[in-house]
Amino acid sequence: MPAEQLTVQDLSESELLARIFPRLNHSPGVLLGPGDDAALIAAPDGRTLISIDTQTQDQDFRLDWNNGYQTSGYDVGWKAAAQNLSDINAMGGSATSLVVSLTMPPVTPVEWVEAFADGLTAAIIALGAPDCSVAGGDLGRGRELAVTVAVVGTLDGLAPVLRSGAKPGDTIAVAGTLGRAAAGWALLESDIRMDSLSSELRGLVESQCRPVPPLAAGPAAARVGATAMLDISDGLLRDASRLAGASDVVLDFDPVALKVHALPLEPAAARLGVDAMPWVLGGGEDHGLLATFPAGIQLPQGFTAIGSVQAVVEPPGSGVRIAGQAADTVGWDHFAD
Amino acid sequence: MPAEQLTVQDLSESELLARIFPRLNHSPGVLLGPGDDAALIAAPDGRTLISIDTQTQDQDFRLDWNNGYQTSGYDVGWKAAAQNLSDINAMGGSATSLVVSLTMPPVTPVEWVEAFADGLTAAIIALGAPDCSVAGGDLGRGRELAVTVAVVGTLDGLAPVLRSGAKPGDTIAVAGTLGRAAAGWALLESDIRMDSLSSELRGLVESQCRPVPPLAAGPAAARVGATAMLDISDGLLRDASRLAGASDVVLDFDPVALKVHALPLEPAAARLGVDAMPWVLGGGEDHGLLATFPAGIQLPQGFTAIGSVQAVVEPPGSGVRIAGQAADTVGWDHFAD
Repeated sequence: MPAEQLTVQDLSESELLARIFPRLNHSPGVLLGPGDDAALIAAPDGRTLISIDTQTQDQDFRLDWNNGYQTSGYDVGWKAAAQNLSDINAMGGSATSLVVSLTMPPVTPVEWVEAFADGLTAAIIALGAPDCSVAGGDLGRGRELAVTVAVVGTLDGLAPVLRSGAKPGDTIAVAGTLGRAAAGWALLESDIRMDSLSSELRGLVESQCRPVPPLAAGPAAARVGATAMLDISDGLLRDASRLAGASDVVLDFDPVALKVHALPLEPAAARLGVDAMPWVLGGGEDHGLLATFPAGIQLPQGFTAIGSVQAVVEPPGSGVRIAGQAADTVGWDHFAD
Repeated sequence: MPAEQLTVQDLSESELLARIFPRLNHSPGVLLGPGDDAALIAAPDGRTLISIDTQTQDQDFRLDWNNGYQTSGYDVGWKAAAQNLSDINAMGGSATSLVVSLTMPPVTPVEWVEAFADGLTAAIIALGAPDCSVAGGDLGRGRELAVTVAVVGTLDGLAPVLRSGAKPGDTIAVAGTLGRAAAGWALLESDIRMDSLSSELRGLVESQCRPVPPLAAGPAAARVGATAMLDISDGLLRDASRLAGASDVVLDFDPVALKVHALPLEPAAARLGVDAMPWVLGGGEDHGLLATFPAGIQLPQGFTAIGSVQAVVEPPGSGVRIAGQAADTVGWDHFAD
């Protein structure tokens, strides 16, 4: 019989915080960290970006997946950080701090919470945001696990890159991967046991549980004059439709370029007996970037061209085309907004 | 039979947002509001305060109280704003924006969400923070209602007032009410039906459901040189113990000054057959301020003296005394940390 596991109800809030704080990194932009009623963060250019995002158990992640994988605290911490860092990246900014609210059932193991803190820190470092740290937070009880992160960031004097600036003639480009997290989700939900997966297919599961948004790409895009940008969080076509609507343009994707993204997903698709392309077009949790650039400029490192922006000449529908055909007439209408 | 009530599952996210946005106020410090991946907020002195706070159904509020009162969306919105504005107030700052994440069961009435947005806006205006507005947010599903607000604010060039600066000889003062929200909670949990309460006692319930933190008092305290300050969110003695520990001092409260706060609660205490003083000492949700000031200075408007700071001369225990007696020897030890 294993030793009784320590759970959060066995500790006071200050005891639990004492286990969390040493696991967090520290950055000089946090002028005043945890311990007072609010933290104080440097905002060197006199402005601060802010975004907020919640992940709730059984809505945004499962603790126990069909294929036997168990989501760890580390996974949840990593993903919470990654999602939020991506929102700042998508504006062309760099994150300076996170504040984290963690709501937990009283029976949550203390080890889970420690792994959660480790996952937050690991993501911040591994994704390339070491100047960002956790500046504060809130712990509370609930019937289900829920994590809310608010992130603040700096544009370092640049203008924010909005969704609304794409112009006809612009080049459409993406940074980061497309469809890997969706393929990972399909594997997690399948009957193929986790321990029977190849390391390549396990990598897809990792993309779902610990996504790797391309954090250098956002500020690089802003510096070269990207005209519009967003984080692909709900799927390429759906997010493209939002950008098209905000910019009043049509985004026309190149099927050959799309195919390049589907190719590495073929082994997983074959294993599951499905088509890889819907993952590329509909999967969002890789947290790549979709951006538009003036035609002819050299795309910043990490971006590859994937289509072109066109003027609206007829009722635009979703505003998204593939090789000139409305995306919702080529079989993927359930991905359109 | 009443008409079928519209619930959030009947609307798309963008339809729901379209019902929320017109109910929010706008402020010039929000340079870029909802609609992109992050909002952009002015931080005029090159720093930004930030705090985060979650309220979860059945943990932080009940939807249906024992006395028949039903918590409205308006109440939850008001309280979420008030709690967070208070955290900025407690640092000596002024809030410039909120980002709000709302997690809801799919059967939540759309009307509830609209009332929630109205409550956020009403609190911002009524509490005296019209330069603050909701800059962004996140909507999601969960099994229980949960609201997380992150608030950012400015110190307007002042130093933040920490918990750790109290010095022996300082005057202890409070701003705002003490014990009203706790008395309201006791009424809500009692068998005395809501509709049989006098307007005075209903006012106590309102203090619980729609607290009124003294928002002008925090920056005023910072301007005159308050040495330490915090938001009384968990009860006077408990929060005083935190300030005492952070400052390495003892806080000695004047029982006569405490009695002044208990007096207006006597009618409710008599109705319930209890003592009012525990509400004053242990009730936190009024979100008043506890601050220390150098002796002899004129307290800013809204503050009244309630004791004095003393040096630690023996093992300090909770660090809190009443008329020189350790607070945990005068019958309120369950309020100490």
